Amino acid sequence: MTTENLITQIRQKKSFLCIGLDVDLNKIPNHLLAEEDPIFSFNKAIIEATNHLAVAYKPNIAFYEAYGLKGWKSLQKTIDYLNTNHPKIFTIADAKRGDIGNTSKMYAKAFFDDLGFDSVTVAPYMGKDSVEPFLQFKDKHTILLALTSNEGAFDFQTQKISGDTEVYKQVLKTSKTWKYSENLMYVVGATKAEYLKEIREIISDSFLLVPGVGAQGGSLNEVCKYGMTDSIGLLINSSRGIIYASQNKDFASAAENAARELQQQMQKILENH
Amino acid sequence: MTTENLITQIRQKKSFLCIGLDVDLNKIPNHLLAEEDPIFSFNKAIIEATNHLAVAYKPNIAFYEAYGLKGWKSLQKTIDYLNTNHPKIFTIADAKRGDIGNTSKMYAKAFFDDLGFDSVTVAPYMGKDSVEPFLQFKDKHTILLALTSNEGAFDFQTQKISGDTEVYKQVLKTSKTWKYSENLMYVVGATKAEYLKEIREIISDSFLLVPGVGAQGGSLNEVCKYGMTDSIGLLINSSRGIIYASQNKDFASAAENAARELQQQMQKILENH
Repeated sequence: MTTENLITQIRQKKSFLCIGLDVDLNKIPNHLLAEEDPIFSFNKAIIEATNHLAVAYKPNIAFYEAYGLKGWKSLQKTIDYLNTNHPKIFTIADAKRGDIGNTSKMYAKAFFDDLGFDSVTVAPYMGKDSVEPFLQFKDKHTILLALTSNEGAFDFQTQKISGDTEVYKQVLKTSKTWKYSENLMYVVGATKAEYLKEIREIISDSFLLVPGVGAQGGSLNEVCKYGMTDSIGLLINSSRGIIYASQNKDFASAAENAARELQQQMQKILENH
Repeated sequence: MTTENLITQIRQKKSFLCIGLDVDLNKIPNHLLAEEDPIFSFNKAIIEATNHLAVAYKPNIAFYEAYGLKGWKSLQKTIDYLNTNHPKIFTIADAKRGDIGNTSKMYAKAFFDDLGFDSVTVAPYMGKDSVEPFLQFKDKHTILLALTSNEGAFDFQTQKISGDTEVYKQVLKTSKTWKYSENLMYVVGATKAEYLKEIREIISDSFLLVPGVGAQGGSLNEVCKYGMTDSIGLLINSSRGIIYASQNKDFASAAENAARELQQQMQKILENH
């Protein structure tokens, strides 16, 4: 999917909401456990209840891998379902991969070609030749970890290199020099909204995937105040706050309500932007 | 597996060789493609031909994920085969994972509990709470990326924090303060053997997983000169140089020969150590 198509979808739906599909069998409604594929049944119901309010879905790959072969099958069915029934939706494999060149190439093939995701999250630690194999795919997007939403972000990401530039800013700057860097987006946590102003000085146009609104405590208004661009440039992710809004039989309509609440806040922000 | 058991195995086999199972269907002998599960058949033949010469096997998870459900099944069969037939062998899931706490916990569960690996490689970028969920597993090992063997290692890992300590050294130092840090090992590339002296000043005893000998150009003698400890402290990985030593019907015996060559160099080094 092109970035232009993503922006068009955002303007049509008046939403820049991404819903994280972090499906944990201990948290989904009990009655689904009797289904043949409880994870896929759950995802399908969530997608059907919320796809008019969200522009992207982000399965967190760990949650599927944790169930081995069965989990991998559920993941494949989920992305196939999205690509077949909602082809305009932007899909993100939240995988945080990154390895030496020939290995990154295999990961890129797995997520872009075989599974058919529009984008994948990638860790920057191993540098240029670990990321460039992902960037080569036309109309696919590589979402590089920059400043994450967790406490551990302060261990290395915010350390200053040569007493001057923080590691995460160096990641932003250096990554802009890589081949096909126009296919880059970045992860920036909502819990660190005040950093967004400086981040926008380095990457003025790139889309940011922003986790941490809701369960992790980040503020939507703050993020938009500092991070929004003329072409929006933001995808705000919410996972647990939406998909586990209820753990009973009404889980899908509860998810819809939780998604609508965020979408309406987003609509207001877009109208005033 | 305990570290003591790994050391015992090293002394018995006079080898600290790890064989990387980076299985690419385009590179394995043609006659195997007719088998029901070519990847597993290849791995089984390689393991049977080399397990007296190697102390560890390291499937590179990307290569399995690239084949989707089938690849995941091949991975499961490979680790089951190792655990059943060669329970003393140390197994490494080369996955380079790392995510926020609740997600890292799912990855740890997937690789340690469900698949039954002894260890998994983890990326440090997201800091403490992204790594600690892996460290909690008794007699399981978390192999943290420190200084990798690729060119891109110079993009961020060797940058100096506050004009003084390189990022990778900060990773070593900081990680020692984490809970259950005794379960940490580290990835240090053989292509940067000269860094090992300073690395050993920070982590004097930890095991290092060293990729980059062979195909990537690192020197075994240099690595051992600077990196070996009283309890060995090294696992040297070779992947392509062994498993693709021949791409014909004699691939298993060619792999055995290539592994023996490395093992004999290691035996000499151990005798002189």
